Amino acid sequence: MKQAGSATLLFENRPYVLSAASVAGKAEEKGPYGHVFDEIMEDDRLGEKTFEQGERKMLLKALCRAMTRVGLPMEEAGCLLAGDLLNQIVTASYAARELAIPYLGLYGACSTMTEALLLGATLVDGGYRDRALCAACSHFSTAERQYRFPLEMGTTAPPHAQRTVTGAGAVLLGASPLPHTGFRHVRLEAATLGRVRDLGITDANNMGAAMAPAACDTIGRHLEDRGMKEMDFDWIVTGDLGDFGSRMLRELAAEADLDLEDRHMDCGSMIYSPQQGYHCGGSGCGCSAVLLASYVLPQIERGAVRRVLFLSTGALMSPLSACQGESIPGIAHAISLVYEE
Amino acid sequence: MKQAGSATLLFENRPYVLSAASVAGKAEEKGPYGHVFDEIMEDDRLGEKTFEQGERKMLLKALCRAMTRVGLPMEEAGCLLAGDLLNQIVTASYAARELAIPYLGLYGACSTMTEALLLGATLVDGGYRDRALCAACSHFSTAERQYRFPLEMGTTAPPHAQRTVTGAGAVLLGASPLPHTGFRHVRLEAATLGRVRDLGITDANNMGAAMAPAACDTIGRHLEDRGMKEMDFDWIVTGDLGDFGSRMLRELAAEADLDLEDRHMDCGSMIYSPQQGYHCGGSGCGCSAVLLASYVLPQIERGAVRRVLFLSTGALMSPLSACQGESIPGIAHAISLVYEE
Repeated sequence: MKQAGSATLLFENRPYVLSAASVAGKAEEKGPYGHVFDEIMEDDRLGEKTFEQGERKMLLKALCRAMTRVGLPMEEAGCLLAGDLLNQIVTASYAARELAIPYLGLYGACSTMTEALLLGATLVDGGYRDRALCAACSHFSTAERQYRFPLEMGTTAPPHAQRTVTGAGAVLLGASPLPHTGFRHVRLEAATLGRVRDLGITDANNMGAAMAPAACDTIGRHLEDRGMKEMDFDWIVTGDLGDFGSRMLRELAAEADLDLEDRHMDCGSMIYSPQQGYHCGGSGCGCSAVLLASYVLPQIERGAVRRVLFLSTGALMSPLSACQGESIPGIAHAISLVYEE
Repeated sequence: MKQAGSATLLFENRPYVLSAASVAGKAEEKGPYGHVFDEIMEDDRLGEKTFEQGERKMLLKALCRAMTRVGLPMEEAGCLLAGDLLNQIVTASYAARELAIPYLGLYGACSTMTEALLLGATLVDGGYRDRALCAACSHFSTAERQYRFPLEMGTTAPPHAQRTVTGAGAVLLGASPLPHTGFRHVRLEAATLGRVRDLGITDANNMGAAMAPAACDTIGRHLEDRGMKEMDFDWIVTGDLGDFGSRMLRELAAEADLDLEDRHMDCGSMIYSPQQGYHCGGSGCGCSAVLLASYVLPQIERGAVRRVLFLSTGALMSPLSACQGESIPGIAHAISLVYEE
């Protein structure tokens, strides 16, 4: 049985999370989880000439760290599944050029991390690859100037806005644990493919609201497909709904008779402290990627939580579609992570 | 055995191609294969207000046609794997919104069609989905204004340039043939993941040259991984190298002791006739997608060719990376299609 319901994949061999790594920026260091990241960027460009080149270097650092942490050369990664927020996902593609390993480019906006893990787990669980390196990243300075305004304008953000996280997260999956190193208790047991949901939100500063319906839809289907209840999960973690989107998710969930209250966490709400003044929190592919890599996975590895439903959430619009009056479609892919002895 | 060599996946259950459909533009209709496409767009906007909305409608038409052709409702598609050339792949994502089926967004530039088929075949072969709908599209008018110049400028193209194909191709894969309809002789037996290759080409009008090294690399590895020879394939078809890139591929192949001469075909060189004056031919995700859907697959189905190695080829740069002086990385993913009684 490798399918359940309409959209859930069951991983019979439960691929292992072997390693994970994160690199984050200064603003993320100042947040409540600043101490968990593996590396903090002293400089937003990492010594490169442009922010875009700095973002690429940040992703490469996370990818290389995930491999060296467990003593594996990059050739042993099996393949890279990655994406980012820049047009034509140039961060991921140019990073892949440096690594010379098989590469699959993904675009799921901020849902990319779980899209990569879902597909990577399929390749490993099915026996098509022994390992798969999954990654996503975003960068405040590159995203801001591509999606919104030149940084030099110093535009102020409205109250529903979220700040794009500067960060890269990488997770190495494998068919079997490594002999003397790496994680050995975190396994992927199932995943649910997201559907595009759109309730008609047109405010590009309120992406949390645009993504909440997709998150609710995927959580509900995951539970239904597997015949499970909310309480079967210690945590249900969403990617970057932020404060406003999280409230909306809880309301939508309540309408659907799901009780998320005490087990829902949102990476977007977690990553900054209110004192930092970033309104509704963090967003961007990097937001869920760095907290997954450096907080959620280690918590499962040490047995502090036993089963986590993790959903990165994406808003699939573009600046052009927004100009053409389109509303913002959302999507969320879910993976179920479990602690095993 | 589901792996061979460093980058090849073997599909033990050999997923079936159940259906395929294409929609193309007027310029493509005037080319030598104009008669094979399922539908020709009378108008580049398909009656919509913008080219982008027209492109989306074109993709939706191809997706729906692939399903209705075999009498299946869209819910039976299993999942959609798709991508296009627009920023944030808005064509695929907004099309997915209309369909409300599980969706995985991909970005492989013009390599997207084989990336989608490779991943779709993995999901079906591994038993995770009964079917998968794979698609890619591009549109001259949307690509031109995003990647190059406003159409109103009437810019002339240099001799190495290729024209972005207006077209959408969709292919439905399945674990078993349908009882009374659809293709039943075309199966996917293997696929090779591409690596990013970059020989330093910086001319964004010469993408064929940027992609040829990746195509050569993937062809060589597919043959090596499977212990096969060029002559084991009736055709080796590349996506959109165009005339110049195809010559370069044959030279690179000759250096690598591969004899492609009489079995290599390139969709970019095939899709227009020289009289149309489009220089080196066609490009864009839609180029290989429409010729695969409406020419290559039907030729295999009727047994005219027995085994085809099909590689969509992508140039992974962005206008921004080009402005920042970066060279153009290329990638090619290969699928091996075989006729079976």
